[in-house]
Amino acid sequence: MDVQRPLNYARAHRAKFVSELKDFIRFPSVSSKADRRDDIRRCAHWLARNLQQIGLERVRVIQTAANPIVYASWQRATGRPSLIIYGHYDVVAAEPLREWRTPPFTASVEDNKLFGRGAADDKGQLFSHLKALQSYLSTNLALPVNVKCIFEGDEEVGSPHLRSFIAHNRQALRAHAAVISDTRMLAPNRPAISYAQRGGLHAELEITGPAQELHAGAFGGAVHNPVLALCEIIAGLHDDQGRITIPGFYDDVRVWDDKERAFMSRSGPSDGEILRDATVAHGWGEVGYSLYERTTIRPDLGVHAILGGHIGPGIKSIIPTRALAKLSFRLVPDQDPQLIAKILRDHIAHLTPKTVSSTLRITSPVQPALVNRNHPAVRAAALAYKKGFGALPVFVRSGGSIPVVNMFQKILGIPAVLMGFGLPDDHIHGPNEKLYLPNFYKAIETSIWYLALASRLRGLRMSQQKEWSA
Amino acid sequence: MDVQRPLNYARAHRAKFVSELKDFIRFPSVSSKADRRDDIRRCAHWLARNLQQIGLERVRVIQTAANPIVYASWQRATGRPSLIIYGHYDVVAAEPLREWRTPPFTASVEDNKLFGRGAADDKGQLFSHLKALQSYLSTNLALPVNVKCIFEGDEEVGSPHLRSFIAHNRQALRAHAAVISDTRMLAPNRPAISYAQRGGLHAELEITGPAQELHAGAFGGAVHNPVLALCEIIAGLHDDQGRITIPGFYDDVRVWDDKERAFMSRSGPSDGEILRDATVAHGWGEVGYSLYERTTIRPDLGVHAILGGHIGPGIKSIIPTRALAKLSFRLVPDQDPQLIAKILRDHIAHLTPKTVSSTLRITSPVQPALVNRNHPAVRAAALAYKKGFGALPVFVRSGGSIPVVNMFQKILGIPAVLMGFGLPDDHIHGPNEKLYLPNFYKAIETSIWYLALASRLRGLRMSQQKEWSA
Repeated sequence: MDVQRPLNYARAHRAKFVSELKDFIRFPSVSSKADRRDDIRRCAHWLARNLQQIGLERVRVIQTAANPIVYASWQRATGRPSLIIYGHYDVVAAEPLREWRTPPFTASVEDNKLFGRGAADDKGQLFSHLKALQSYLSTNLALPVNVKCIFEGDEEVGSPHLRSFIAHNRQALRAHAAVISDTRMLAPNRPAISYAQRGGLHAELEITGPAQELHAGAFGGAVHNPVLALCEIIAGLHDDQGRITIPGFYDDVRVWDDKERAFMSRSGPSDGEILRDATVAHGWGEVGYSLYERTTIRPDLGVHAILGGHIGPGIKSIIPTRALAKLSFRLVPDQDPQLIAKILRDHIAHLTPKTVSSTLRITSPVQPALVNRNHPAVRAAALAYKKGFGALPVFVRSGGSIPVVNMFQKILGIPAVLMGFGLPDDHIHGPNEKLYLPNFYKAIETSIWYLALASRLRGLRMSQQKEWSA
Repeated sequence: MDVQRPLNYARAHRAKFVSELKDFIRFPSVSSKADRRDDIRRCAHWLARNLQQIGLERVRVIQTAANPIVYASWQRATGRPSLIIYGHYDVVAAEPLREWRTPPFTASVEDNKLFGRGAADDKGQLFSHLKALQSYLSTNLALPVNVKCIFEGDEEVGSPHLRSFIAHNRQALRAHAAVISDTRMLAPNRPAISYAQRGGLHAELEITGPAQELHAGAFGGAVHNPVLALCEIIAGLHDDQGRITIPGFYDDVRVWDDKERAFMSRSGPSDGEILRDATVAHGWGEVGYSLYERTTIRPDLGVHAILGGHIGPGIKSIIPTRALAKLSFRLVPDQDPQLIAKILRDHIAHLTPKTVSSTLRITSPVQPALVNRNHPAVRAAALAYKKGFGALPVFVRSGGSIPVVNMFQKILGIPAVLMGFGLPDDHIHGPNEKLYLPNFYKAIETSIWYLALASRLRGLRMSQQKEWSA
């Protein structure tokens, strides 16, 4: 099938595509906020209309117990491979709003950068595939492969309903590979394919002390301050080597051989690059590993929120009744989130002194995932990058978690091709998130090339595929 | 001067006094909140009007750089002693509001208890003296002693302008003793006179990390999480014996001999009583001291607020840019808040790893204070309690801080007689603060007796008095 006409079409319609993407970004589709359910729904329907308009078929907005899944397919490429294209149209909250230079849901362009919550994660990346499909269907009136699009609205809250959706529609979703663009390149001219994702687990730890808020003068020194106790428990979760102290926590962490670590050292970002992207002067973490290794093949435990006492302005000298922290684990092969949840419970119980009580609410378990970087569908993606960006991609591990990767592998038995188009300084999840527009244009062309290259793949299996191990 | 007529007057006007006190409590005179400045001002003028109406003279609302001081005097008792009556009409914030059974500024009575923010601390206690003065002036048309009332509006934020007010009006404020009712009894039938107050110091500790909020997946494990760092620093401020680890912190803590500790053990609350009042099952703190000692002759370091990361609902898996804690010290003789501030700064700098930065804002230094429990003006107060409550008071140390005590001693050279009328379960500074009305009635009668007994004191000195030491 001709590739040049779709490429020409994509180049001619860049301004139009950016304009549509702005509309997409303007929906404040924040999945963690109950009061954004309507915005999410409107965003899903907008996306469905776009799929319909560009010529996809069986377009549906499928209700789940949480936010809808937008589904569409095109299955007229008889004898050609079938690809799932996965993305998510939900975004994380935009707070703190005062740190945004332009409001997060206005989608403003400045200096070739499109600013807005979701610009890179994941609306912009998702949209590049849609515009590739449109470029084919508007010129060749056909796609070179069969396509099934799954765009979910709950990725940022751990995809709680996606597993059952995939499991229930296993037959309808049969495919040879899934393409996911929700990761990042190393630099604008250094494309990357992620072949590993960390898993995750969230936990809310609440410490309760006195039944009534107490005057710190009257009782300070005799009653354990719950904020202090919370700090002491959290501080007790790491040792002075940066290792997590939960007994058994590292038991199932896969040990990688020198060959893999040497590959990582060659292909991944340096400590200096990671520090620059992180806007910090000094690295932190587990002794004995590079920063790249610490964010990919080693687990992490962070605190993404803490709250206790009188946080309003001014002084209120009290012993509060409670304090709360939101903990967040990143897990690596072969750690099992369920087992980690259990040993975390035991350890928190052990660390909690009798002077206070602790409650732990554990949510959002995500399995870590690995992709065989030699799979033909992955190799085809590498060639597509060479066409679209003029450079072969490096194979990197991601520190983040995309719950669906493991689901595609375990339930559908197909590999997930993680073609990232984001950049390290996109500030995803932070203020002033942006999409670098030249990357968006090249991402569309890379997707056009990928669909063409994938159509020539032969001998792909639709059956369960073994998880790759080094 | 006749005492019976004022006593009869006070008994006959209980309902009226409670009704007035309710009006007083209904002003949300929260000194820590900038948006309550108007409420404070209106409260000050209401109080001034009340002083005027009951017959006090030279009534003034004196503006300071913060909230006004309400002043009034009555100096026609020629040849009789002069007493300062000190109190504060400001209150701490009422949050968390949802934990109040009735709104904090409605002043509702239930079961002989008057509920409301400030009911006990300090509006109710302050008001009992006013109503004693009124009982004299309405019946005898005179007071048995000379009186100077100082009611301030900034006590709960550390009385920042009171020191300069007293120093500048040293001559006008000459007196033989000061009476302060801002402490508590042990039980409704067990009055108490406080002879020691802890000092204090507040510090805001802010930890800053990356310049931009980071995705915890991408950077978790390589970048020090500021919330985690804050917890680690705070946890490092105590050792496993409950002692504060700041080098030199205990150098100036006065060591009390067995005689004083035995007196404390006899006169003060037991561990069991303190635990019951605190609504906790287990004590905490410095090994080697009773709970009463831990809250009075030993210093304390608590955290009255902590805040960091995404505290809104839902999960936002980030490494925040900063985290903040509000620390609160209680200091004891002979610790100097200024010196403690210095060694705290040094220690926080020492505890801060190079992976984050720390900023410390230190405010509200308050000197600890001791009162000679054998001073005639204190002894007279003991007799007044015997008349008003039917029991002699115990002499106890308070864990709290009343900045003015030290100021009266150091600047005016007079003792502060700490006649407390509060109760341990008054929930001052917490939700559902209350005043036990039978205590209010007895407090008025005790004050009537005190003014009579004080009028007979001879040989009191107006000059600088040596601080008492055991």
